[in-house]
Amino acid sequence: MNYPKALEDLIVHFMKYPGIGRKTAERYSLFTINNFDQDNLNDFSEALATVKNKVFRCSSCGHLTDVDPCHICSNDIRDKSLIMVVESPKDVFSFERSGNYKGMYHVLHGAISPMNGIGPDDLNLASLWDRIQNEAVKEIILATSGTQEGETTAMYIQRVLKNMDILVTRIGYGVPVGSNLEYADDQTLTKAVENRKAY
Amino acid sequence: MNYPKALEDLIVHFMKYPGIGRKTAERYSLFTINNFDQDNLNDFSEALATVKNKVFRCSSCGHLTDVDPCHICSNDIRDKSLIMVVESPKDVFSFERSGNYKGMYHVLHGAISPMNGIGPDDLNLASLWDRIQNEAVKEIILATSGTQEGETTAMYIQRVLKNMDILVTRIGYGVPVGSNLEYADDQTLTKAVENRKAY
Repeated sequence: MNYPKALEDLIVHFMKYPGIGRKTAERYSLFTINNFDQDNLNDFSEALATVKNKVFRCSSCGHLTDVDPCHICSNDIRDKSLIMVVESPKDVFSFERSGNYKGMYHVLHGAISPMNGIGPDDLNLASLWDRIQNEAVKEIILATSGTQEGETTAMYIQRVLKNMDILVTRIGYGVPVGSNLEYADDQTLTKAVENRKAY
Repeated sequence: MNYPKALEDLIVHFMKYPGIGRKTAERYSLFTINNFDQDNLNDFSEALATVKNKVFRCSSCGHLTDVDPCHICSNDIRDKSLIMVVESPKDVFSFERSGNYKGMYHVLHGAISPMNGIGPDDLNLASLWDRIQNEAVKEIILATSGTQEGETTAMYIQRVLKNMDILVTRIGYGVPVGSNLEYADDQTLTKAVENRKAY
């Protein structure tokens, strides 16, 4: 005997998320039926259907936002001469949570990974070169992850910018080697920014 | 800096599921934006909004179904003289998957738990007594979990039926003591039915 089709549909949708297997998806789907009232489900349903229209990439830095340019790019108090390059919007949220960085960001939406067929052209890099040409940028902080892909990406950007009159630094001290930025705590992130070193 | 409101809404919805904390909810929400196209999100959204209308409890056995009575209750080949009492629809799916049980089911939607204020009146029991009175039932198999709540519930039903001309059995051999039925494999479940013993 199979699950009723509507339930099976829901299970299949949950299984598309990373780390959710069949058993967990069944658990979430049954939880959905048993523990949520219809109003709650309508809200969740609406949130899913509209999130991609309401949240998009900032045309300047690539960060996820609901206004363009994003709150960070349009904030006049922030230091426009400093751009921190990160792999994902999650990293921006992490650095903002740590609360000590007052410059700008640039979100690559990925990292160079020849194994997965991801090259520089697949990243949000063209607009970074534009920003460097058109804005008065003095320093680029490379805050990609400590993974091989992150290091490769940092190296690539550093090489492209080598002959330009711009300081390129790499966050260093603090971020554990071989780990993803998203698991770092606030203090580690703050330390990593303080202890950045020039290439 | 906070997440854009639409993203935060989605995060909060994911956090309502058991075992999903803030970090995981953020991960799922960002995954939703980055990895699903709008068609896919519309389907997921629709599945969530309609699942409670399309999937409901069978008026006879209480199992989750999209037709009433459910496919099991309306199947003439199955043995109507045998009713297996389980705690949750998940248990029905588990026994059906194991493939060797050909009787009927009755889903309690819970177990007696004084600690959580759940008594016999909170379970789908009234319709079980009705079925026993109105259908030609010869045997009730108590297949509640091996937990304290499951044992208490089995004991309660057995006592109510003690003076009636009906065989009451408890699945025994096979289900690990103190664990939930949902983690049992097919063979364990089959063994548990074979080795049921009379009270």
